[in-house]
Amino acid sequence: MRIAVDAMGGDKAPQEIVKGSVLAAQQVPDAEIILVGDENRIKHELNLIRTTPKNITIRHAPQIVGMDDPATHSIRKKINSSITRSVELLAKGEADALVSAGHTGATVAAATLHLRTLKGVRRPGIAISLPTRYGTCMVIDAGANISCKPLHLYQYGVMASTVSKHLFNIENPKVGLLNIGEEEAKGNELVRETFSLLSNSHLNFVGNIESREIFDDKANVVVCDGFVGNVILKFAEGMAKSIFVTIKTESMSSFWTKFGMFLCKPIFRSLKAKMDFAEYGGVPLLGVNGICIICHGRSDAKAIQNAIKAALKLSKTKVNEHIVSELEKSNTLTAEVA
Amino acid sequence: MRIAVDAMGGDKAPQEIVKGSVLAAQQVPDAEIILVGDENRIKHELNLIRTTPKNITIRHAPQIVGMDDPATHSIRKKINSSITRSVELLAKGEADALVSAGHTGATVAAATLHLRTLKGVRRPGIAISLPTRYGTCMVIDAGANISCKPLHLYQYGVMASTVSKHLFNIENPKVGLLNIGEEEAKGNELVRETFSLLSNSHLNFVGNIESREIFDDKANVVVCDGFVGNVILKFAEGMAKSIFVTIKTESMSSFWTKFGMFLCKPIFRSLKAKMDFAEYGGVPLLGVNGICIICHGRSDAKAIQNAIKAALKLSKTKVNEHIVSELEKSNTLTAEVA
Repeated sequence: MRIAVDAMGGDKAPQEIVKGSVLAAQQVPDAEIILVGDENRIKHELNLIRTTPKNITIRHAPQIVGMDDPATHSIRKKINSSITRSVELLAKGEADALVSAGHTGATVAAATLHLRTLKGVRRPGIAISLPTRYGTCMVIDAGANISCKPLHLYQYGVMASTVSKHLFNIENPKVGLLNIGEEEAKGNELVRETFSLLSNSHLNFVGNIESREIFDDKANVVVCDGFVGNVILKFAEGMAKSIFVTIKTESMSSFWTKFGMFLCKPIFRSLKAKMDFAEYGGVPLLGVNGICIICHGRSDAKAIQNAIKAALKLSKTKVNEHIVSELEKSNTLTAEVA
Repeated sequence: MRIAVDAMGGDKAPQEIVKGSVLAAQQVPDAEIILVGDENRIKHELNLIRTTPKNITIRHAPQIVGMDDPATHSIRKKINSSITRSVELLAKGEADALVSAGHTGATVAAATLHLRTLKGVRRPGIAISLPTRYGTCMVIDAGANISCKPLHLYQYGVMASTVSKHLFNIENPKVGLLNIGEEEAKGNELVRETFSLLSNSHLNFVGNIESREIFDDKANVVVCDGFVGNVILKFAEGMAKSIFVTIKTESMSSFWTKFGMFLCKPIFRSLKAKMDFAEYGGVPLLGVNGICIICHGRSDAKAIQNAIKAALKLSKTKVNEHIVSELEKSNTLTAEVA
């Protein structure tokens, strides 16, 4: 199994990306990791770590896509960027999966352009797993597609349901539609039309889901357009941070609360771990013809290590083949809409 | 000051609504509270409390708008509902403000129909105040308008900025636009066009705000369309509940964590109070020609009591007059768009 890692993508690149790749290479010796980026800078980082596992190789790519570069511009103009070169390795069959903590928009655009979408898929979508008391709830799309049509949302339901089944072993995943009320008539045109598509599908559709219900056990998969999903993802991050910082600050107010917080440390450690993106490593871009794991821009070595392991797992479960066959099942339905 | 309270609206109506109204009436003796709803049921509740303050009166309205009733249907067919009758009291000048924990859609529809919008306002919007480490951040719209146009969002900015200034005494409120990236070119057509309107306005516009930044001190007001705002509101509620339940459950795992949690009780009490909607009571529906406070469906007596106090405060600050004059300032700009 060969994983292309975008060594120049992310706030802590190349340092943490190289470190995480080395950790993963040591942990999974039968995986081959290809670090894509500026050769000298990657070599420099490897020298600092003082170990280069045999299953790590380098592919030179001198250009970097900055976080301010527009996505389409970057893939057109920077053809020697680490993102584009990584995607090309997948497209040429020289790698089986890809991990990037770089510019999300550019990664989505490069993957869509060079890998193309899976047979039958209209638009790729990013699937995030939000931690709940009952495990996780997969929300799709988290920002790949901000001009969603009902068919896109419907296909997100099929794709995420397939991933839930084959990656998380959920027998018949419950699929919900994010809406601002439970009643069928609620919401804007997009969600009302999607409701009808999902109702008539072979999926285990449980109807509209209000955003507060993401944390209940009502659905394993919740579909929404990429703007809303991205807002949810970042809101969850901001709110978790805000709550934890407030608890920490307020606990400093007296000796007893300080002592109480000391005793409660194990609780907060486990809660933080549950909510920490580094634990998940990255999230899959579903619908492109290849395994792509997108990481948080602030990814550290641990996040990259876990992302590489997630990429390996997705590759092994042959999730894309399952997605294509699931989409074929709903051919009649989608043919009517298309 | 006369407040019409929809006694039949909400999951705990009429019991908690009547209780909360009595508490408010006792606390603010110079306010007159008009309980609107089924006279016999209201009298029954008042008898149970065994006290009817002199500043409480009853207006009979036999019909109830159910949570499953479509908003437009309910205001057309149920003309004797407690919501419609409450709004009518405002429209006729027999009340100065209105409080309802009933069907939000029906309240918005009834208020828009009977009170009309303020001079210059295209669509009313619900302004919620999310608690942050720095105070609160006002997000508008939280669900009154799910077919937003750039001009609506722009006007939400003007209205919420005015409320921040006159109710929260913020000198020059920072207004942000909710988007999925900080760069001007980010987001869908709606936000890109709104960005241009806000940039050219007299508001203290601070640009795009990512949802995680709602919790920072970047903006006092964040505008977004009603679908996204409603998703945020309910997501925050679900996530807060999920975190607190998880902390409570995990603290039960050992004697020491249980003891630690006992010591930390003051922290969680203050944090919960900050995040508890009952503390705020209700949120204003801005842009209609009258003071309307919309409460959570699960409102208890304390929430209703606080909502009545919020209504009194908004009435006293003459916020609607200020909104009209602020909108007039931007006449040239909006005339170009309209």
